[in-house]
Amino acid sequence: MIKAGIIGGSGYTGGELIRILLNHPKVEIDFVFSTTRADKEITTAHPDLLGLTDLKFTGKVNLDVDVVFLCLGHGNSTKFLDGDKFSGTTRIIDLSNDFRLKNDSIYDTKKFVYGLPELNKESISQAEYIANPGCFATAIELALLPLAKAQLLKSQIHVNAVTGSTGAGVSPSATTHFSWRNGNVSWYKPFTHQHLGEINESIKSLQENTGEIMFLPMRGNFTRGIMATAYTPFEGSLDEALQMYKHFYADAAFTQIALEPINLKQVVNTNQCHIHLHKHNDVLLITSAIDNLLKGASGQAVQNMNLMFGLPEGEGLQLKAGVF
Amino acid sequence: MIKAGIIGGSGYTGGELIRILLNHPKVEIDFVFSTTRADKEITTAHPDLLGLTDLKFTGKVNLDVDVVFLCLGHGNSTKFLDGDKFSGTTRIIDLSNDFRLKNDSIYDTKKFVYGLPELNKESISQAEYIANPGCFATAIELALLPLAKAQLLKSQIHVNAVTGSTGAGVSPSATTHFSWRNGNVSWYKPFTHQHLGEINESIKSLQENTGEIMFLPMRGNFTRGIMATAYTPFEGSLDEALQMYKHFYADAAFTQIALEPINLKQVVNTNQCHIHLHKHNDVLLITSAIDNLLKGASGQAVQNMNLMFGLPEGEGLQLKAGVF
Amino acid sequence: MIKAGIIGGSGYTGGELIRILLNHPKVEIDFVFSTTRADKEITTAHPDLLGLTDLKFTGKVNLDVDVVFLCLGHGNSTKFLDGDKFSGTTRIIDLSNDFRLKNDSIYDTKKFVYGLPELNKESISQAEYIANPGCFATAIELALLPLAKAQLLKSQIHVNAVTGSTGAGVSPSATTHFSWRNGNVSWYKPFTHQHLGEINESIKSLQENTGEIMFLPMRGNFTRGIMATAYTPFEGSLDEALQMYKHFYADAAFTQIALEPINLKQVVNTNQCHIHLHKHNDVLLITSAIDNLLKGASGQAVQNMNLMFGLPEGEGLQLKAGVF
Amino acid sequence: MIKAGIIGGSGYTGGELIRILLNHPKVEIDFVFSTTRADKEITTAHPDLLGLTDLKFTGKVNLDVDVVFLCLGHGNSTKFLDGDKFSGTTRIIDLSNDFRLKNDSIYDTKKFVYGLPELNKESISQAEYIANPGCFATAIELALLPLAKAQLLKSQIHVNAVTGSTGAGVSPSATTHFSWRNGNVSWYKPFTHQHLGEINESIKSLQENTGEIMFLPMRGNFTRGIMATAYTPFEGSLDEALQMYKHFYADAAFTQIALEPINLKQVVNTNQCHIHLHKHNDVLLITSAIDNLLKGASGQAVQNMNLMFGLPEGEGLQLKAGVF
Repeated sequence: MIKAGIIGGSGYTGGELIRILLNHPKVEIDFVFSTTRADKEITTAHPDLLGLTDLKFTGKVNLDVDVVFLCLGHGNSTKFLDGDKFSGTTRIIDLSNDFRLKNDSIYDTKKFVYGLPELNKESISQAEYIANPGCFATAIELALLPLAKAQLLKSQIHVNAVTGSTGAGVSPSATTHFSWRNGNVSWYKPFTHQHLGEINESIKSLQENTGEIMFLPMRGNFTRGIMATAYTPFEGSLDEALQMYKHFYADAAFTQIALEPINLKQVVNTNQCHIHLHKHNDVLLITSAIDNLLKGASGQAVQNMNLMFGLPEGEGLQLKAGVF
Repeated sequence: MIKAGIIGGSGYTGGELIRILLNHPKVEIDFVFSTTRADKEITTAHPDLLGLTDLKFTGKVNLDVDVVFLCLGHGNSTKFLDGDKFSGTTRIIDLSNDFRLKNDSIYDTKKFVYGLPELNKESISQAEYIANPGCFATAIELALLPLAKAQLLKSQIHVNAVTGSTGAGVSPSATTHFSWRNGNVSWYKPFTHQHLGEINESIKSLQENTGEIMFLPMRGNFTRGIMATAYTPFEGSLDEALQMYKHFYADAAFTQIALEPINLKQVVNTNQCHIHLHKHNDVLLITSAIDNLLKGASGQAVQNMNLMFGLPEGEGLQLKAGVF
Repeated sequence: MIKAGIIGGSGYTGGELIRILLNHPKVEIDFVFSTTRADKEITTAHPDLLGLTDLKFTGKVNLDVDVVFLCLGHGNSTKFLDGDKFSGTTRIIDLSNDFRLKNDSIYDTKKFVYGLPELNKESISQAEYIANPGCFATAIELALLPLAKAQLLKSQIHVNAVTGSTGAGVSPSATTHFSWRNGNVSWYKPFTHQHLGEINESIKSLQENTGEIMFLPMRGNFTRGIMATAYTPFEGSLDEALQMYKHFYADAAFTQIALEPINLKQVVNTNQCHIHLHKHNDVLLITSAIDNLLKGASGQAVQNMNLMFGLPEGEGLQLKAGVF
Repeated sequence: MIKAGIIGGSGYTGGELIRILLNHPKVEIDFVFSTTRADKEITTAHPDLLGLTDLKFTGKVNLDVDVVFLCLGHGNSTKFLDGDKFSGTTRIIDLSNDFRLKNDSIYDTKKFVYGLPELNKESISQAEYIANPGCFATAIELALLPLAKAQLLKSQIHVNAVTGSTGAGVSPSATTHFSWRNGNVSWYKPFTHQHLGEINESIKSLQENTGEIMFLPMRGNFTRGIMATAYTPFEGSLDEALQMYKHFYADAAFTQIALEPINLKQVVNTNQCHIHLHKHNDVLLITSAIDNLLKGASGQAVQNMNLMFGLPEGEGLQLKAGVF
């Protein structure tokens, strides 16, 4: 059994991790660390787990676990690791954006590998430290990587992606207030979202010179999920595009090519990414959809853990879809 | 023109008041007081009013207006009035629960009148100070008053009422977080909600000895509106009940008897209360629905103002229903 | 491996069953019958299953499976069984209300057992035919059975329960139109819902003479889940009530007693029933919450199947909660 | 008083018209025609109007009204007018897309004027027949017209717009089923939506040669409103853009330039269009928001009527915003 620790277990990504790992046949949760809830039962933060676990949050970290998941706010992973010394064999999977870019990806002389299995499966398998991708980044990269691989991202790429409210975290705020968000839609950080950094690094690892990605992030009035659309000129046929994508994702455990137009809910509560292609005149429209907390965060973190420990990639992730 | 001041204009009830009064043909908004937003444009808090007003919030109260609306948190109206001395002719309409009960209803040697027009139209017309009813209280009293009038509330009355999130105010909290509230339902303060005080006073003003009101308040996952159901033994026929209710509300400007079962949205964004009666065996089921911010707060406050100033009761309140 | 057939696989309960059984380690789906979609891929009705199954709907029933689930409209199970002759060893689990009442529970000389494991675990284990309980019935019976067992349902019981839109099935209608239902709430069939039949039979199997159940069913503006509240006089202490409920559910695989007030979403997407008790004066308020498609339908059907085939009761039902 | 008739009053746009006109000080509703509901009370379709009107739907058209509004499905206006002969002085305002394009805009030897007041105020004032713009078309044209006027739409324009469910009409369908649409998002008719026809005609009336409009329409999970984003290269400063838009809309009764980023709900339940400008590098991002049933349909129809009859443009349209 893999002994796992979770740092920051009272938020959304921490909660999702606990739920997944409790049912994972090869993992035992050793501790769930929380400064604000130490010694309280985990069900105080996650009442859905009633009867499924007696675990309590702990204020003390066990440095001898096999793997530790960092579910901290951005910037806090760096600070946290600075103070702790996990044993040399403890693998670290960080869900923040602290180590995703090449310039920031060093800790303890070792390098974080960017944990997108569809791009880096080999290096993830051998990695000790993983920087888990961002949620928008996962959806957008999976939409664009096959084109980059084929050196076909020549012109501007127009990306619109809408996210659920859980992407903004558990702390209440004006834009996650139910009275404001319900029935509403709005954008934020137009063309400057911080995930563009990792998106561009991943894209450019496959195609050096590409058109600019124009990315407009939207706040949707739903709780879970991201749907991204991207379009760019494409000279080939739809069939050629489909072959290219199917080939690129032939070994992917969780990325599927859908022949029919997709809707967001068909992936919510799963670790799947669904991708659909549509050709209009000389333009290819790519649509991708993920659950932001699973394939966009905790599910992908477990997928990475499975690869690091030589387990089947989908172990513990055969989640039931609750699509309505 | 009636010169009106609003104290506490950045919250939901303050915002609704501004919207109504801007279109009220007999009212001029003299000032909107806000400690937190003084000198900022009103559209910073209420962007929907863009182009409709150039008013700014003020940090200074004009004591010489004709009417002042207090849209403060519960407890703060008492404090506020303690510091200010409005001129003797300034009418006060308080939307908090500070002056609703007989024991608490004195200010400046004068008495607050409980501002439910269906119950107190005459005394409201002559009042100088009005205690505007609570939202749940409005819905539940309008459901029960005709039975009290007929001395027919003999047994227990079973009330369930569900409210929208705007009832909890503009400050974000755990139970108004979109990620929590969306798709959710829950109860709070079972059988002990603070509005039971004013409900019982109103009921008992018509019938001295009544059965107990068992009131279970629910949080709904919508933004506006309250739907209340109440049932109690009733020996007469449905037709007799209908006649009784129609008679009681014959002069009501905004309370309608619906012959078909009602749904919440048919009153949302209006100042109406819709009431439906259903007989099952020896039980009468009364259903009432209001918009919690209009008939349950700011709309009723303007209705009271109209009565106090001798205007048509519905002036400025012929709001378009936005029922979807 | 248990060979399972599903009759009526294109609706909501059929879809949930397919999702659960695809991940059930001891079950192989032999066929999914659908008259309207015969020969089409299952993913045409359930696109979330893309990549998880290549199964097609079939227009032909295999009479030699180990178990068959009937996910048909009410009334259609009787008709369907009339035409087909499953082999003597085929177990039948019917999700309609055709065989739930004692008077209606005969097919092929054999008796349907009412499939509520918390009530009938022994007889379910030995049953050949199961009548799976209704969704409202499951929530309300689980709230009341311990009191019936203790002979304490002496007075009227006041029940309010709100259900999600999936309870109304996949066929579009006026009250499941998004424009109508969103932000709305309403009741239907006041005090006469058809589930009262099975609720009363279950209650009376434990306590012969009880007070009347006054049940007001509500339509909520969410997709999944039922929250029921029930209250009735209770002379004992809260602690005595808690002990009684904990004792009654000591062996229950999926029914939990929650000490904190519950909200609907903590059970959505799970097979759990959460029950909370609250004492107010001489009244006991019981709140129960389930996912109407899982514990209220397909999840409970699989729970019953597990019991019938001697498997661990929770096999294949350790579903991840997606609580936001 | 203007005598108005409404053809097709049981749908959403018909209902909105009735609500507006009942409160319009210069209009009297003469009849509301409906084939399916003739002789039934209007409140059977629009229960929110209880107590506000005693009107019944009629199966007979009065040909001698001053103005008639056609709220029929697309294609049916042509058929309807074919059978009826309104008196020569009856003005017609058609809400379908039957007469919006120049090639289709003839009826009874007279020409329909495209009813976007911000573009055609003069000719609307003198028109006898009005083709009321589409909802998406209104939002997108208002976002782009000032640039067209300045001959600055040189390159491709990238438009994404999301609409509420009322845009799809009152008849239930798979994509307006609450269980499907709630918490969901999806696109339809990518780059080929029928409103592109009228959008292009309006744009090209100001600038002959423009870049292509790439328009991706989205289905949102809310009931009312459209938010559109559009971006295209723009060499000037943000300030220059703001001046250009303010100048273009200086006389607009209902189109406002917002300096802060906007959200959809700030216009819902109003006849306003809010427009926001943002500059990023050499790109101008224009965001516009309207209520699809008001400024996008019935509100704009009344605005057109006001212009045609020489009334103040905003008469009867000072609607209270219900922004939550």
